[in-house]
Amino acid sequence: MKDKDIELTIAIPKGYLHDEGYQYLSKFGINFDSKSSRELVFYDRKSKVKALLVRPSDVNVYVEHGSADLGIVGLDLLKEQSPDVVKIKNLGFGYCKLVLAVKKDSPYKDSNDLPANCKIATKFTRLANDYIQKKGLIAEVVKLYGSVELAPIVGLGDAIIDLVATGSTLKANNLIPIETILESTAFLIANPVSFKFKKSRMSPFLM
Amino acid sequence: MKDKDIELTIAIPKGYLHDEGYQYLSKFGINFDSKSSRELVFYDRKSKVKALLVRPSDVNVYVEHGSADLGIVGLDLLKEQSPDVVKIKNLGFGYCKLVLAVKKDSPYKDSNDLPANCKIATKFTRLANDYIQKKGLIAEVVKLYGSVELAPIVGLGDAIIDLVATGSTLKANNLIPIETILESTAFLIANPVSFKFKKSRMSPFLM
Repeated sequence: MKDKDIELTIAIPKGYLHDEGYQYLSKFGINFDSKSSRELVFYDRKSKVKALLVRPSDVNVYVEHGSADLGIVGLDLLKEQSPDVVKIKNLGFGYCKLVLAVKKDSPYKDSNDLPANCKIATKFTRLANDYIQKKGLIAEVVKLYGSVELAPIVGLGDAIIDLVATGSTLKANNLIPIETILESTAFLIANPVSFKFKKSRMSPFLM
Repeated sequence: MKDKDIELTIAIPKGYLHDEGYQYLSKFGINFDSKSSRELVFYDRKSKVKALLVRPSDVNVYVEHGSADLGIVGLDLLKEQSPDVVKIKNLGFGYCKLVLAVKKDSPYKDSNDLPANCKIATKFTRLANDYIQKKGLIAEVVKLYGSVELAPIVGLGDAIIDLVATGSTLKANNLIPIETILESTAFLIANPVSFKFKKSRMSPFLM
């Protein structure tokens, strides 16, 4: 099968939305030839659908630039990256919360207790800065790429803003959430041009 | 052992500099109690040294903010993130190159062949933009977080700028490097305040 026979390309994130993403697509009869995590491109030759397996933070990029017609992405990353894409629908799965968390033994009970010029470590710098502004806090946002829960333990900041699903990572690191900033679930998104010109092929997904 | 007894904290990256980073420290008699990849903080109680195991892209952050006195980081990330740290020395290991690469069957032999307004996918947006400017190219840099080698395969851009160690990832994806942008090895860096006030403790590393 050549790529020119493909009618629809879908960007699917690795990580916590991966399995439910595949399950969701299988409801439409879409099943890929391999789900090995080493391959990055999969085909369903019958449905003429191609899947790109990418980092969660890259789904928006592939869809915005038209390398994928559709994508599955968390609301957290939609709000953080604010890509030029069409939000088709909330898929309901992949629930998690973006929270402000502090050390269990800290005196801070909510964001107003945080000291002026405190540091807040996070992967979500845009959402963190929006939140700080909304709350009228004076704080420095420190961008980290991994293991944000380590930051307060080693003195990098008084608080973190991070995603929480079960809460077990926070707990294991003696952190407690003190405010919820955003509740997130997975969304189906589309490239604006694809959405216009491939609408009939996409119609099963639009119901 | 309490953290107040620790004399030196060192940020060590996960990934390709990890093992040689540990080997380098062991030359100074520093050996940590555990090297399990699940733990993020390790101790050498005898040397009074603590290690933070962090993402490569987070080493600069922990050192710049003083949560680590020393760090081991690639020149690629030092140039990309341009943190306020002291470069102590080139450690020599972890050699890799940041290259401009294109599809094997593309007509582009060097950067001047790239079409105007082409897209270049990369994790290294600052270094990519500097390079584009230096070369007088007109190109759009597209930031990706993972598997940059996928981009040209799925039509996201004409070229990538990515790190290459053995070259096997490029080869496996039918890409070839056409220009070298930076040659990188691991560097030992220090927090500027620590460098001033813990100089005697750091002296073995300064030789």
